[in-house]
Amino acid sequence: MTNKPQKPKLIAPRLPRGFEDRTPGEIAAVGTMIDKIRKVYERYGFDPVETPLFEYTEALGKFLPDTDRPNAGVFSLQDDDEQWMSLRYDLTAPLARHFAENFETLPKPYRSYRQGYVFRNERPGPGRFRQFMQFDADTVGASDPEADAEMCMMMADVMDALGLQGKYVVRVNNRKVLDGVLDAAGVTSEEQKLTVLRAIDKLDKFGPEGVKLLLGAGRKDESGDFTKGAGLGDEQIGELGRFIEFGRWFAFTAGSDGKSSQSAQSPGGLDEDLTFFEAMRENFGQSAPATQGIVELEAMQTLFDAAGYGPDKIKIDPSVVRGLEYYTGPVFEIELTFPVTNEKGQQVVFGSVGGGGRYDGLVSRFRREPVPATGFSIGVSRLFNALKLTGNVPTTEPLGPVVVLVMDKDQTAGYQKMVSELRSAGIRAEMFLGNSKNFGKQIAYADKRNSPAVIIEGTQEREQNIVQIKDLIAGKQAAAAISDNAEWKATRPGQFECGRTEIVAKIKELLAAYQ
Amino acid sequence: MTNKPQKPKLIAPRLPRGFEDRTPGEIAAVGTMIDKIRKVYERYGFDPVETPLFEYTEALGKFLPDTDRPNAGVFSLQDDDEQWMSLRYDLTAPLARHFAENFETLPKPYRSYRQGYVFRNERPGPGRFRQFMQFDADTVGASDPEADAEMCMMMADVMDALGLQGKYVVRVNNRKVLDGVLDAAGVTSEEQKLTVLRAIDKLDKFGPEGVKLLLGAGRKDESGDFTKGAGLGDEQIGELGRFIEFGRWFAFTAGSDGKSSQSAQSPGGLDEDLTFFEAMRENFGQSAPATQGIVELEAMQTLFDAAGYGPDKIKIDPSVVRGLEYYTGPVFEIELTFPVTNEKGQQVVFGSVGGGGRYDGLVSRFRREPVPATGFSIGVSRLFNALKLTGNVPTTEPLGPVVVLVMDKDQTAGYQKMVSELRSAGIRAEMFLGNSKNFGKQIAYADKRNSPAVIIEGTQEREQNIVQIKDLIAGKQAAAAISDNAEWKATRPGQFECGRTEIVAKIKELLAAYQ
Repeated sequence: MTNKPQKPKLIAPRLPRGFEDRTPGEIAAVGTMIDKIRKVYERYGFDPVETPLFEYTEALGKFLPDTDRPNAGVFSLQDDDEQWMSLRYDLTAPLARHFAENFETLPKPYRSYRQGYVFRNERPGPGRFRQFMQFDADTVGASDPEADAEMCMMMADVMDALGLQGKYVVRVNNRKVLDGVLDAAGVTSEEQKLTVLRAIDKLDKFGPEGVKLLLGAGRKDESGDFTKGAGLGDEQIGELGRFIEFGRWFAFTAGSDGKSSQSAQSPGGLDEDLTFFEAMRENFGQSAPATQGIVELEAMQTLFDAAGYGPDKIKIDPSVVRGLEYYTGPVFEIELTFPVTNEKGQQVVFGSVGGGGRYDGLVSRFRREPVPATGFSIGVSRLFNALKLTGNVPTTEPLGPVVVLVMDKDQTAGYQKMVSELRSAGIRAEMFLGNSKNFGKQIAYADKRNSPAVIIEGTQEREQNIVQIKDLIAGKQAAAAISDNAEWKATRPGQFECGRTEIVAKIKELLAAYQ
Repeated sequence: MTNKPQKPKLIAPRLPRGFEDRTPGEIAAVGTMIDKIRKVYERYGFDPVETPLFEYTEALGKFLPDTDRPNAGVFSLQDDDEQWMSLRYDLTAPLARHFAENFETLPKPYRSYRQGYVFRNERPGPGRFRQFMQFDADTVGASDPEADAEMCMMMADVMDALGLQGKYVVRVNNRKVLDGVLDAAGVTSEEQKLTVLRAIDKLDKFGPEGVKLLLGAGRKDESGDFTKGAGLGDEQIGELGRFIEFGRWFAFTAGSDGKSSQSAQSPGGLDEDLTFFEAMRENFGQSAPATQGIVELEAMQTLFDAAGYGPDKIKIDPSVVRGLEYYTGPVFEIELTFPVTNEKGQQVVFGSVGGGGRYDGLVSRFRREPVPATGFSIGVSRLFNALKLTGNVPTTEPLGPVVVLVMDKDQTAGYQKMVSELRSAGIRAEMFLGNSKNFGKQIAYADKRNSPAVIIEGTQEREQNIVQIKDLIAGKQAAAAISDNAEWKATRPGQFECGRTEIVAKIKELLAAYQ
């Protein structure tokens, strides 16, 4: 016994935290969703492009939301020539590199869509993965609000194509307006501005009171974790608060005429007879950038109206921020408006499933001439989870293959021939390849694969040149109605015999009834 | 001048070596190819599964071909809890982990296909990338040669589905036969065996003389790089050489009856009246493993015959090795047999575009019970390159969007409305979003996008409630026939006018002619 060789230590079969496998049902359902999105992008004139998962770290830049430390949040490693490479954390930074690298040959404007995995080296959590899929569209080389307006309309069309009519709104703002308001409030350093933008971006999550804490000294969450605030004074906070309230108020109450409804309580000091844009100008249009931002928003509204996108689909909302520092003009996000219950048992709206904006500075890291750009990104997994909640995802499991059972181990060549005939007729089919001694296990396998039918040929059938076909779907339906075991055995529901040469025709008939 | 702010240093827009962007045409063509392969896999009863790009390094194991140093060839980094993670280098090692992790719930046999990128941290070269796509199918939990035979038939069906009839052969061997021959030749250490297998695997590349060098002291290539050999003696090399010659001879000459044709020169000492399997047994069937291997190959041949796969599609060939050390039984590869010219200007066959085999030990790294498995992998890029050479890839560029030109900058809402009408009718369309001052640039853009038509509405047209439609395809065809500039201007080929309300109908007519 002492000479028995030691067994090698087993390795635990497990994935690193924040990564997951995808099942057949999910792959099929997400594939269907992706196809619908792709069709909208293509109808809008966008063409696909794909970049690799690695880029030089310096080419990616440091544009991760909520990340202040350089290189934090990114998976990086050193190449054998000592240069740092990183896995892409979004699909926008690689696009900027691709456009700059192929500047001479690409059509301008350059309109592309890109789908693929991105990576974040962050602490994973529920619904928060370190590898996830994004599906983006961008127009590079177009400076006018027409390009931004088109992005918003395309986002709305994507939601409609997915069956989410009435359950979403595309909210639109302009960073220039925010910049003007921040200037007026005396927020001037770039770092402080970014902290303020990120604080306002948390409005949905923390409410106005939480945002005010983040604008001031900081906010402690339930777990005791403290987030340092922007350090603004009370007066500054008050001024920004008024802007946020104004935005929320108009976003929630404005009708298609741009006027607020009288039923809602207006924030103090606003003239309720003004149109939205008049009120914007009067209250926040003092600086040149803010005025320019309001002009661009009005131009976009004109285009929405002309193309028939009402406020049920697209809505100007001054409280929209988007956290990324590289945005320079219009910003927009898709908000799903139906209620869900959050981790604390509260009713909240589902929230954002994607967004984007104008980023005129991103390509200029590579090239001297100005290259305006605008685009948006859809979070595929998050959108898919939303579709599951609204019932816009098929719930029926796809049909498995027809399984030819192995009744006699020395007859596999014959069974293989049956399978080949079925496959040649375009029918999913396979011979059972496991341990065939146990008939019950073969049936259980077919059930688990959701097979529509099994084909049985024992010695007796072979001598008579026939087979038994067991219709597993009819069998299941009948089983639900039969409670008596003897009756079951006598009737054998869903089972019938046919000639060896009729198999393909009979299986086709059977499948036609279930498709 | 001295106060002028310094411009920031530009970053070079470039990719790390061995990575590449994919263009719209390539994405579409590869997508079509992938779909055809997927349909075959699904017809065979396989279901999709997807694993993430990262695995724990210990879960992946060290099974890279041609790599002896641990961890060489793999992109690895340390997670924040100090554990090493690696990007997958193939789709087989992650499958073993996935199967072991979900052992209780998965159907057995477990039949899955997987498509995705894999990564090799190796020196890139022409056609040799560090990120590339594989498309695999595997049956886990099936021990009999029926499962291996099915893999070979599926590979043949994939090649047929891609239009490669008569241009490929699936070559099949069994590692057990090789093991027996190596045993008989006195090659006993695992390390030496592996070196010998890799040497034989180079037969296509280096010819019999090159292989003999690799079996002996080693081989120096043109660049002076020296590859250390297996260090076998002359007698051992002679014995292995006889085996290789035997394999090649039968593979190249055997007819469908398993007998060699008389016209070919047989290697010395072989009885030409024996069938292939008789000759195998007589020459190399002395050991138990070799006999078992020959039995399995015969069983597979019986299945190929029953299902109608002749030697024009699948062929037993004892010279097939496959370099990976984890194979334990049947091994197979798809060889494309049409000639291409290599880097040295020599005519060679295109060679392998995929392969696989039985790997009964891979899952047992995670679990005590034996888990037999077999599968194969297609190199997507290499197969795609082959299809380009054989003309089995569409060469016509896909049609771009209809472009509505911006003739008056203050009328974009009206142009946008036209675009929306076209899109609502399912037609790819866009408004020109670049600098619209230059009419020629707008037309050049549409040409570059391969647009079928542009729509022109200037002040005059707007007043008359009409538009001009310029059929760019007809225009190009006419332009080729007209050499006179005045004639061109007079006839304006491919251009016609229509009522504002007729746009969608007229564009539909125009597109129907080109699709």
